[in-house]
Amino acid sequence: MTSDSSLEYLRPEVAALKRKVDAFVENECIPAEQELEAFMANRHGPDRWTAIPPCLERLKKRAKQLGLWNLFVPQHLIEKLPDPSLGPSVPLTYREYGIVCESLGRCPDLAPQACNSSAPDTGNMEVLLEFGTPQQKQKYLLPMLRGEIRSCFLMTEPAVASSDPTNLETTLEKCINQITGQIEYTLRGRKWWSTGAMDPRCRLALVVARMQNSSSNATSRHGAHTIVAVPMPHPQVKLERALTVMGYDDAPFGHAQVLLDNVKLTPEDLILGEGSGFRVSQARLGPGRIHHCMRAIGMATRCYESMIRRSMERTTFGKPLWQHGGCQEQIADSVADLHAARLLTLSVAAAMDSVGAQKARDRIAVIKVAVPELCYRVIDRAVQVHGGAGLSQDFILAKALAGLRSLRIADGPDSVHRRTIALLEIKKEMNKRKSQQKSHL
Amino acid sequence: MTSDSSLEYLRPEVAALKRKVDAFVENECIPAEQELEAFMANRHGPDRWTAIPPCLERLKKRAKQLGLWNLFVPQHLIEKLPDPSLGPSVPLTYREYGIVCESLGRCPDLAPQACNSSAPDTGNMEVLLEFGTPQQKQKYLLPMLRGEIRSCFLMTEPAVASSDPTNLETTLEKCINQITGQIEYTLRGRKWWSTGAMDPRCRLALVVARMQNSSSNATSRHGAHTIVAVPMPHPQVKLERALTVMGYDDAPFGHAQVLLDNVKLTPEDLILGEGSGFRVSQARLGPGRIHHCMRAIGMATRCYESMIRRSMERTTFGKPLWQHGGCQEQIADSVADLHAARLLTLSVAAAMDSVGAQKARDRIAVIKVAVPELCYRVIDRAVQVHGGAGLSQDFILAKALAGLRSLRIADGPDSVHRRTIALLEIKKEMNKRKSQQKSHL
Amino acid sequence: MTSDSSLEYLRPEVAALKRKVDAFVENECIPAEQELEAFMANRHGPDRWTAIPPCLERLKKRAKQLGLWNLFVPQHLIEKLPDPSLGPSVPLTYREYGIVCESLGRCPDLAPQACNSSAPDTGNMEVLLEFGTPQQKQKYLLPMLRGEIRSCFLMTEPAVASSDPTNLETTLEKCINQITGQIEYTLRGRKWWSTGAMDPRCRLALVVARMQNSSSNATSRHGAHTIVAVPMPHPQVKLERALTVMGYDDAPFGHAQVLLDNVKLTPEDLILGEGSGFRVSQARLGPGRIHHCMRAIGMATRCYESMIRRSMERTTFGKPLWQHGGCQEQIADSVADLHAARLLTLSVAAAMDSVGAQKARDRIAVIKVAVPELCYRVIDRAVQVHGGAGLSQDFILAKALAGLRSLRIADGPDSVHRRTIALLEIKKEMNKRKSQQKSHL
Amino acid sequence: MTSDSSLEYLRPEVAALKRKVDAFVENECIPAEQELEAFMANRHGPDRWTAIPPCLERLKKRAKQLGLWNLFVPQHLIEKLPDPSLGPSVPLTYREYGIVCESLGRCPDLAPQACNSSAPDTGNMEVLLEFGTPQQKQKYLLPMLRGEIRSCFLMTEPAVASSDPTNLETTLEKCINQITGQIEYTLRGRKWWSTGAMDPRCRLALVVARMQNSSSNATSRHGAHTIVAVPMPHPQVKLERALTVMGYDDAPFGHAQVLLDNVKLTPEDLILGEGSGFRVSQARLGPGRIHHCMRAIGMATRCYESMIRRSMERTTFGKPLWQHGGCQEQIADSVADLHAARLLTLSVAAAMDSVGAQKARDRIAVIKVAVPELCYRVIDRAVQVHGGAGLSQDFILAKALAGLRSLRIADGPDSVHRRTIALLEIKKEMNKRKSQQKSHL
Repeated sequence: MTSDSSLEYLRPEVAALKRKVDAFVENECIPAEQELEAFMANRHGPDRWTAIPPCLERLKKRAKQLGLWNLFVPQHLIEKLPDPSLGPSVPLTYREYGIVCESLGRCPDLAPQACNSSAPDTGNMEVLLEFGTPQQKQKYLLPMLRGEIRSCFLMTEPAVASSDPTNLETTLEKCINQITGQIEYTLRGRKWWSTGAMDPRCRLALVVARMQNSSSNATSRHGAHTIVAVPMPHPQVKLERALTVMGYDDAPFGHAQVLLDNVKLTPEDLILGEGSGFRVSQARLGPGRIHHCMRAIGMATRCYESMIRRSMERTTFGKPLWQHGGCQEQIADSVADLHAARLLTLSVAAAMDSVGAQKARDRIAVIKVAVPELCYRVIDRAVQVHGGAGLSQDFILAKALAGLRSLRIADGPDSVHRRTIALLEIKKEMNKRKSQQKSHL
Repeated sequence: MTSDSSLEYLRPEVAALKRKVDAFVENECIPAEQELEAFMANRHGPDRWTAIPPCLERLKKRAKQLGLWNLFVPQHLIEKLPDPSLGPSVPLTYREYGIVCESLGRCPDLAPQACNSSAPDTGNMEVLLEFGTPQQKQKYLLPMLRGEIRSCFLMTEPAVASSDPTNLETTLEKCINQITGQIEYTLRGRKWWSTGAMDPRCRLALVVARMQNSSSNATSRHGAHTIVAVPMPHPQVKLERALTVMGYDDAPFGHAQVLLDNVKLTPEDLILGEGSGFRVSQARLGPGRIHHCMRAIGMATRCYESMIRRSMERTTFGKPLWQHGGCQEQIADSVADLHAARLLTLSVAAAMDSVGAQKARDRIAVIKVAVPELCYRVIDRAVQVHGGAGLSQDFILAKALAGLRSLRIADGPDSVHRRTIALLEIKKEMNKRKSQQKSHL
Repeated sequence: MTSDSSLEYLRPEVAALKRKVDAFVENECIPAEQELEAFMANRHGPDRWTAIPPCLERLKKRAKQLGLWNLFVPQHLIEKLPDPSLGPSVPLTYREYGIVCESLGRCPDLAPQACNSSAPDTGNMEVLLEFGTPQQKQKYLLPMLRGEIRSCFLMTEPAVASSDPTNLETTLEKCINQITGQIEYTLRGRKWWSTGAMDPRCRLALVVARMQNSSSNATSRHGAHTIVAVPMPHPQVKLERALTVMGYDDAPFGHAQVLLDNVKLTPEDLILGEGSGFRVSQARLGPGRIHHCMRAIGMATRCYESMIRRSMERTTFGKPLWQHGGCQEQIADSVADLHAARLLTLSVAAAMDSVGAQKARDRIAVIKVAVPELCYRVIDRAVQVHGGAGLSQDFILAKALAGLRSLRIADGPDSVHRRTIALLEIKKEMNKRKSQQKSHL
Repeated sequence: MTSDSSLEYLRPEVAALKRKVDAFVENECIPAEQELEAFMANRHGPDRWTAIPPCLERLKKRAKQLGLWNLFVPQHLIEKLPDPSLGPSVPLTYREYGIVCESLGRCPDLAPQACNSSAPDTGNMEVLLEFGTPQQKQKYLLPMLRGEIRSCFLMTEPAVASSDPTNLETTLEKCINQITGQIEYTLRGRKWWSTGAMDPRCRLALVVARMQNSSSNATSRHGAHTIVAVPMPHPQVKLERALTVMGYDDAPFGHAQVLLDNVKLTPEDLILGEGSGFRVSQARLGPGRIHHCMRAIGMATRCYESMIRRSMERTTFGKPLWQHGGCQEQIADSVADLHAARLLTLSVAAAMDSVGAQKARDRIAVIKVAVPELCYRVIDRAVQVHGGAGLSQDFILAKALAGLRSLRIADGPDSVHRRTIALLEIKKEMNKRKSQQKSHL
């Protein structure tokens, strides 16, 4: 089971690019995973968040040389790049970049960063490209595009069910400085699952906050939130602790709990002004979900291939595992799941290319639910076929399983997206009925 | 959830054709289901197999008028048509015809027959087009293409696990007539699940038999079988009884158990000569599986739409069903399943168009397993949302559920196809290793 | 996989009784299924509902001889029997009768009726035993206990989601006859899934209706309904049609749609007076659900045993089915499912014996959801292992599958019972918190 | 959902004991989890395996005071205790101890150890009680029963699929010391998943090895293995590294990879002599699987209770989670799963009490497969309801999920046990047929 079939439909330059990405991931990134592991093995406690393994800078240089840098930048944003030389070597559609993403996902800790196309930086760069002020672009976007700094996106909160964004409690208070007469903002709250906030290279936090004492549009559901750009590190942004995902801290890139302790901001720190949080967040999500899904497929495919190899190398009851009927079913169902996951995601990416993320949002919600589950099942089977080794540190399987499990929760748990899908479907039927009634008049 | 998105990628003439098919199915075929039901309601016992409801001939005329006749004929066989005027109004790729098939599948008892594109006739016509002698084409193919007669395909046997074709016990004995000196064949055995054999219009049975006392190539696994064309009705072909599928006899189109009681045949009755059974069967299967899957998707989509409507019309605990979280999950998961099923099948059809059925056989096996299960789940949820009504004769749901359940067995049970997929995957890995070893030399 | 292990815990007289039931079912009832089938094979249309196969009376006589008659009567109702000689030969606890029920369920069309312990008669007899007036007992209960007549229970309605009983629209209007000055009632509505209403022996319909223009307690949710006893056949009770369950009409015992067309009743026809519907229904449900579940387990066990035999008799790819790993998993999972289903149900029956149905209602809801699904899975696997034969009339599998599918809807769909379970669990936690708060004061 | 219902069937002294265990676990062990966590938080690298948190010794003293010490010792081994005062305060059946085990499982890191009833010590103590020489009992068993030392069991090997024990490659070579003339043994091989081997208190390793150059019975499948007792630490037993289970190292109790580098042994170090490995292993397994399953149920129940609480504390879309239909289904299905898991396991424990582990081995295999899956599903749902918190270190859920995932592999993967179940079922049917044939003679 390979994704080669998808190559047929690629433009020649994209097919060539994909072959380059594949070779880079397979021959340079995956072998470097051991360097990363060795680098981290002897770093304990706070030391885990203070240094970046040297292999990463080496891989970044290579990716630039190979023309694999910033491939994520979507076509319609290329013209907004502050420095055109930082754009992708081949401008890619969402579908095409999705196919690249699958390859990067095979080595999730190194390959996306090596190509400067890792979450949450890609989403943050898209936001800055589309909505950032010249100052914000100069200060944050340019060094991000150059791969000099990293960033984080602070939305989820520990105190509330963040899957319903109206629950968010972090506030942005607006007031007039009595002395200067200037408008000032104060940001207060606690966030968690702030991936990348503890990365020593992190220089920017985009924070979603609810307006307090603000203009009238903030009362509407969609105008209640604002996104602000907070420079990092920041004395009032306190990194309280690192969170683990099923035992993995994902250091030095992992997930922080963050206290926003009266962070003082100015109007220049707002993204697109007060109350624009919903609009800005939405713009981030569509492409982000494609990327997440495709990377998950890449990871699941790698685990699947490992399952195939293992089934040929181990023997029970007198024959290799693959000759056992049960193992054959694991293989067959995994092939089907991977095909389905890939086709679903690429078809949504193609829809985004042709009709835009907004009109494709029902199908984006579908892949948000379906693809992590499909990939999780594949990896779970791969673990099982590997036996105890599958849960150990000897294979990427256990970490992949943990990562995929978290995808069923990250960016909103399945239940929320299932609800969204159903409500959109019902709305379609209601609209259809209305238009039929009209046509009968 | 509609399949409209698939229209984007259609050639304009195919999109127009699909719209015509859709309208024909929705406005003419589905309404006629009640006529079929009323026609059969008072026919009991053997009478259920003696007449065809008049609505069918009416629909066939309409389909011809609308240019919806024989759309199944694949492009590469059009030139072999004995009468070019009987070909499709628009020659269709497998993918394009698959999309048409989905529409026909919404009304499985009437629409495919109305368009002269129903199983097993389509497969049999393809066989005759590709391998038939001029006499066979004149005698069987022409009237079939005209919609004057029907046919059946006799493979499965009651006495053995027919999923392993080497088990088949029906024999074709070859001998020399002592008087005439001519070669003769005698066909002996018992078949079942012979769909269409009891249809009063059935004039042809293609029968898979094992060679007895034959030439040497019959000893090979792939050369052991021969397919013969038996004219129907035939005094030595005894229709022993009608089989039911979960209580449905599908009369007058349904499934017979058939005794082949020393049926005498001549060399002219063989399809492509002795030992060609495997090759001929394979040619039937690829397109047939696409058709089956797409029709199943059409049926499941119809059931899904019924579920949506029902969820808006019924109320429990003070709110419509669709406002209950559990129902929303049923809807959301069904949307995902239908998308996945459609994308999987159409991608395989596209692969058949580009690389041929033989090279796509691993992916054909995937859809043979995956798509019936996906569609079954959708219909099962639709039944559940309808409550008792879903199991009754008031909706097509219960019959659809039975039909889909049988698809997990017909043309080989899931387990056989899972095995096939796994063995092909292992073979790919073995071949990859061999080629790597060679390149190291 | 047998249920023998459960015998260990049985009282000796119950163990002996179970052995008798087992032998009766295996050696007399199951062989008679062919007589039933042959009897019905030539009865078409309305004729399917006019006669009962002779084998049934023969089996009833045998069951009486063997002391297997009316075993369903629970211990606390035995003293209420109008004729003590009609009671069970061995008074059984719910758990013990549950074990008997499993055996009867192996031959669902004949064994329960043969032992005068079939639904819905058992529930109706329990209601009459507990709540019936002397006249009702004389008129209905005695002949039912003797096996001379049958009955039906009319609750579900075609026009509303009946899983929420507050939706029921059938009304019972109370008025004073202007001439006689007597209280009269008029029953109006339409019911369906009225199992047994078309049985030629049916002489009683218990009907659930909503009070119209009645006393004040009818406004409460639990006092809104009344159950009335309607003598059958009745000129104003119109049997509109027979419903099918996935193609099976279950004639002559099956499911009717019934019009209650201004049925005139007197106060003597009410069960326990106005507004008692909820209380009476509840009394029916607990034991009924145990019976349904245990019969389903009996049926699933029979299908499982058939799967085991089939796996030994059929061969693919050079070895019997049971040597294939996939088949082994089907067997193993079925063993686990049957064990779980049996233990769950018997433990609930034991709870009913010790604390009563009311206190065990959370666990009754659990088995209502869990056991049909467990049994369904077993039967579905058995179908798959049998191949096409599993869906045909040659085995009981297909009919069993249809029957089990309907159990996920009958007596309330899964979703309603899942909701009930969850609400009871939450209530427990709330009560616990309240009592903790109190203890802190 | 509580397990209170099971108390009804307990002897009064056992019910009292269970209440004591429950209170000890809830009020003393679970609160101490934070001490354990704090103790380990600052221990890194090799330091993680050098010290035991003080809370453990405190809890052990308490458990002894409360009479909760060594409750695992089965009744038939009590008389073999070298010091009767070390036996359980109340001798327990397997079923009764299973119920205790569920309580201990709620706090898996501390409660079982606190009561000196943790794996793999319990199995090893059973082995020594049943088969140990007086010297082995003095040296190992007594200090283990007193809780002074711990032990490990070395079976699984990294180089082979250990689920098929005939694959094991660790060898025990027998030879005659040329100088002393004494029999000597040399143990060579590599083991992993050696739980407890790195515990600083570990003083004994039981090792499963294949005989090399040994007596004839070693050629039989069941006589090929021997178990030896190796004193720990040992210069030739090299602890190569710690394995992680999905990111958890479970230090200081966790899982080692161990090199057996020419370990010299004497005949006194063998358990029950050469070739007894299979017999000794089997004796360990039955009770061990009951314990594993019941502890898993305790853990899943704790997670379930956390889910209930969380569903009452968090709100989305205007109502608490538990009012959402999807959440209700998670709760309901979890109740059913926990009931099924508990009933299955306790019924097997009861069977072991009445017929012994050997005759119950088919049902032991059933719970080995079914119970971890049921518990895993419950915990997985609990994780989902908790959102991101469920995967973090803030709840026990993520670690529980990892632990349960490993149970589907530890002691043999599901596929092996499914195979065992199926083969035993087929054998039963074959034996039944044979006995029927005989009775026909």
